[in-house]
Amino acid sequence: MERIPPPVVKRFSYYLSCVDECVEEGKDWISSRDIAESIGITTSTVRYDISFLDVDGTRNGYRAVTLREALSKALGLDKGRKVVIVGAGNLGRALAQHEEFEECGFHICGIFDIDPSLVGKKVGRLKVRSMKSISAFLRKERPDIGVIAVPAESAQEAADILVEHGIGGILNMASTHIITPPTVPVVHARIVASMRELSCAIRLQRTEES
Amino acid sequence: MERIPPPVVKRFSYYLSCVDECVEEGKDWISSRDIAESIGITTSTVRYDISFLDVDGTRNGYRAVTLREALSKALGLDKGRKVVIVGAGNLGRALAQHEEFEECGFHICGIFDIDPSLVGKKVGRLKVRSMKSISAFLRKERPDIGVIAVPAESAQEAADILVEHGIGGILNMASTHIITPPTVPVVHARIVASMRELSCAIRLQRTEES
Repeated sequence: MERIPPPVVKRFSYYLSCVDECVEEGKDWISSRDIAESIGITTSTVRYDISFLDVDGTRNGYRAVTLREALSKALGLDKGRKVVIVGAGNLGRALAQHEEFEECGFHICGIFDIDPSLVGKKVGRLKVRSMKSISAFLRKERPDIGVIAVPAESAQEAADILVEHGIGGILNMASTHIITPPTVPVVHARIVASMRELSCAIRLQRTEES
Repeated sequence: MERIPPPVVKRFSYYLSCVDECVEEGKDWISSRDIAESIGITTSTVRYDISFLDVDGTRNGYRAVTLREALSKALGLDKGRKVVIVGAGNLGRALAQHEEFEECGFHICGIFDIDPSLVGKKVGRLKVRSMKSISAFLRKERPDIGVIAVPAESAQEAADILVEHGIGGILNMASTHIITPPTVPVVHARIVASMRELSCAIRLQRTEES
């Protein structure tokens, strides 16, 4: 696969959600303009990005199912991904039961916690397992993605265990940065960072109005 | 306040987390290099971004507490933000109890759901309220931020109610795009999008290795 620049990759994940919606609504075609307007970027950016895919546009735009397939493939979603969640607090439990994950090809195969009072509890179709058993689990199941949903002070330790057992990449939901070798990509999905970004946007908006 | 470009704002929220950590560790000074390395961007980007703030650098870098204050102010966090959550499913409940929010100046003032079986249930120090009472609540409490944690098909309706009652901005956790007037900023905090981004990074990594 051609090396796709990271910002393009990031946008692809948004395009895919947009194309998903179109297909659900029964639309056969989607234009770069449809995508651009739904996300709030320019049509030329959308066209540039899609040029990395092996997809032909027509006068009607792109065939929705074809574009969806190409985006899924570019995002490595065509084969599905096995996901393990570390941390069974509120956030971990919410993630384990987040229906959208399964729909999008992310199969949660296990959820772990260090707290004995949580171990054994049902979370959807899974049971919380003890951190003592995570090494054996990782060796056997070999998940692609590890989600870190533990307090900040335990995040690096959780990451180290995942890396040691050959995890493909980490989604970090903890409120701290974690360090991994360059071969193990990390995406920080920090909700507070989104809140802060929004907070500043509100401030700028109010400054303009006043 | 000078108009700060949105990508800079987004980075500020990451800088703030990084500076927070330094202060917690008892460090007095932080350099643009410290920030750059912790986030994985160039020092020149960090210096450019910080030039939007009224902060002087020295040979030792920036005084951590001063930088933290300036970043908080730029992000509109110095006064605190009132937050209302729409949707008391797993995700909504997790967010309502997410301790980091309070620590960072986001005060959750209410959580609402349409499901009568959830109304009245305790979520941390709050009780889930009925959507029937949200209009009166919004008029009285006037929250700054609305968090949408409802299923995709109800997200736009939830956004419309918030906008109608003068919400400052929306954090959208739902798996769909929502439309608001240009005066109401929206940040999409879609976890599946982060998963997809990570998935592609893993794919690219494995392509390089093979």
